[in-house]
Amino acid sequence: MDHDTASRTTLIRSASDAGSRVFETILTRSPISRIDIARQTGLSQAAVTKAVAPLVAAGLVDAPPASHRDGTPGRPVSPVSIVLESMVMLGVKVNVDEVIAVATDLATTVLTSTRRALPADDPHSVIDAISDVVAELEQNLGLGASAIAGIGVSVSGDVDSSTGVVRESNIMGWADVPLGDLLQSRFAWPVTIENDVHALTIGEHWFGIGLGTASFAIVTIGRGIGSGLHLNGEVVSGAFGVSGEIGHLPLADPALVCPCGRRGCVEAAASTGAIEAAVSAALGRPVAIDEAVALAHAGDPEAESAFREAARLIGTAIATLVNLTGPELVIIGGEGVSDFDLFEKTLRDAFENHAFGAAVRCRIVTRPHTFEDWARGAAATAIQSLVR
Amino acid sequence: MDHDTASRTTLIRSASDAGSRVFETILTRSPISRIDIARQTGLSQAAVTKAVAPLVAAGLVDAPPASHRDGTPGRPVSPVSIVLESMVMLGVKVNVDEVIAVATDLATTVLTSTRRALPADDPHSVIDAISDVVAELEQNLGLGASAIAGIGVSVSGDVDSSTGVVRESNIMGWADVPLGDLLQSRFAWPVTIENDVHALTIGEHWFGIGLGTASFAIVTIGRGIGSGLHLNGEVVSGAFGVSGEIGHLPLADPALVCPCGRRGCVEAAASTGAIEAAVSAALGRPVAIDEAVALAHAGDPEAESAFREAARLIGTAIATLVNLTGPELVIIGGEGVSDFDLFEKTLRDAFENHAFGAAVRCRIVTRPHTFEDWARGAAATAIQSLVR
Ligand SMILES: [Zn+2]
Ligand SMILES: [Zn+2]
Repeated sequence: MDHDTASRTTLIRSASDAGSRVFETILTRSPISRIDIARQTGLSQAAVTKAVAPLVAAGLVDAPPASHRDGTPGRPVSPVSIVLESMVMLGVKVNVDEVIAVATDLATTVLTSTRRALPADDPHSVIDAISDVVAELEQNLGLGASAIAGIGVSVSGDVDSSTGVVRESNIMGWADVPLGDLLQSRFAWPVTIENDVHALTIGEHWFGIGLGTASFAIVTIGRGIGSGLHLNGEVVSGAFGVSGEIGHLPLADPALVCPCGRRGCVEAAASTGAIEAAVSAALGRPVAIDEAVALAHAGDPEAESAFREAARLIGTAIATLVNLTGPELVIIGGEGVSDFDLFEKTLRDAFENHAFGAAVRCRIVTRPHTFEDWARGAAATAIQSLVR
Repeated sequence: MDHDTASRTTLIRSASDAGSRVFETILTRSPISRIDIARQTGLSQAAVTKAVAPLVAAGLVDAPPASHRDGTPGRPVSPVSIVLESMVMLGVKVNVDEVIAVATDLATTVLTSTRRALPADDPHSVIDAISDVVAELEQNLGLGASAIAGIGVSVSGDVDSSTGVVRESNIMGWADVPLGDLLQSRFAWPVTIENDVHALTIGEHWFGIGLGTASFAIVTIGRGIGSGLHLNGEVVSGAFGVSGEIGHLPLADPALVCPCGRRGCVEAAASTGAIEAAVSAALGRPVAIDEAVALAHAGDPEAESAFREAARLIGTAIATLVNLTGPELVIIGGEGVSDFDLFEKTLRDAFENHAFGAAVRCRIVTRPHTFEDWARGAAATAIQSLVR
């Protein structure tokens, strides 16, 4: 890291609990007055002023010029702002066939992005591809590796973010891969590993639709089915790193075996692969998802029935999630959203049939996250691990 | 309220955000030093000292005698303690056939308790019974109504604690009953209404097994099946007051209609009533739960099969809850726990079959909550609404 980035990182990492909370509040609510920071954090104004000063001195926060006779910088009601470009973060989303990478500022606004096809899905091929895209981002930025403050990498599956180990990823075919350690040996800045849907949830919570929403869930549909939960103002990570595994709730026919090996999982009947398998079996020939979509749009009863069954299970799974955790909003994302017309009616009916009491008032909306949005979520996890 | 109780209530209710957090920390961690309060709350020591002083003056908190030359009361490292008997709280659990009531101190330790059979389960019979038990508790205490600082009442079902309305309670046969308003017109102190399992969770979180556990769930089995969730240090209440409705997850045969009117709910196959119905149907005569338990213990295959199916569903429902929210501990309570030997093996097997990845490490324990414990949970909600 260069001198500025290194000293800023050290300042944030060594901050007191109060200092961290002040920086996090400015980061997510910028611009914000010192009075409002005090209100948000419950700290005294004196404590806020004390915490803001070193952030201003380090160039992480902008404060208006001195306006007191005695030279005290800024008045408590004048807003202070995060200096968005004071740190560059990288985010990488690992897919089964490619990696997508972004460099962002401190609000996860994309500065530059790239992607690379994977020749194979073993950990070393993925690590080589990540090294390649990172080198390309550095070159695009023209800043040199030393200006980067951290990298977040997100992968589907059971990921232990505290150790950086991918414990189980069906989509990649990985078990117990120490991805964090393997990547850390290549890079000078801290590496954060997170489940991909959790990362998307952290990104939406800090910088997206989740800001200002007390409780929401993201449900992703497509090749995999997952979810991320944000309750009482916090992302739910799970005591053992597992949470939001809506794709592996046992709501489907127990005769169906899921790629994870368990019986009756939602994914076994509602993923893209399950829809392909159902239509292929009904028509007696291999049918890929694009053709299944076209057939359903053309009114083919077998294809319609496969989408209806998937939609019924996803709606039932969302009702399950809402009955248990009571969010005010469910955001449906993932690549399956592009064909949401084939799901919507059955999905909403199933949700309403099983939502308990007032839980039916939970809003369900769709949001077409791009792969870049997923990579931005990974960058958000790197920002979060810097602060916490 | 008497002068002391009234002034203490006013002090707590009008406290700043920092003051509330300091009082809550002392309440749940007493005895605790001012330095540790500052650490827990992220406040400065000066702010803690400022917040503690009026609590000491009002008799809510005990501080060691002055030890500084300048007369400043107490040293930062000397612990301060909650004065447990400085406020009396009432808690009432409404069951379908009786109300159970306790008077407690500020740690929900029971000072006196009573119960009253319900002649009918309509709201007015329940309100009359609550008035009766409250009068009896007042007499037992010998303090007069004015010494009481609040009452919490817990009921099974969809309860909106923000308005005090019981929106749906199948077990009571209630819909949209403004229980809070109806009771408030009878009592001088604030009335809090809460779902019974949420109340139990709040009690365990503040004063029970949940203290020091970052995330746990309570699952109750018996006549009703419910759960309470505590994640990231907070009870999950649901944006619309609904959460933890594990009894109404659609995991059972859709042919079964639940008392709530929905199809395939866990309760429709796993509640005490469902077990009675299954054994009765198999044997062609009415069988009550005590006989069903005796038959199962004697090896009757029909009774064994009914308990096994109930256990399988409850274990699957717990796996569902754990896959979504990832607690470190699940506490099984409720009156069904007394026959847990009939559930345990099948329940644990079903949980292990469906728990995803590391989620299987979640511990499952039983805890035989008495009805008094449920009423203590209701008292805990009254303490919580005083503070928050
Ligand atoms: Zn599965
Ligand atoms: Zn039901």
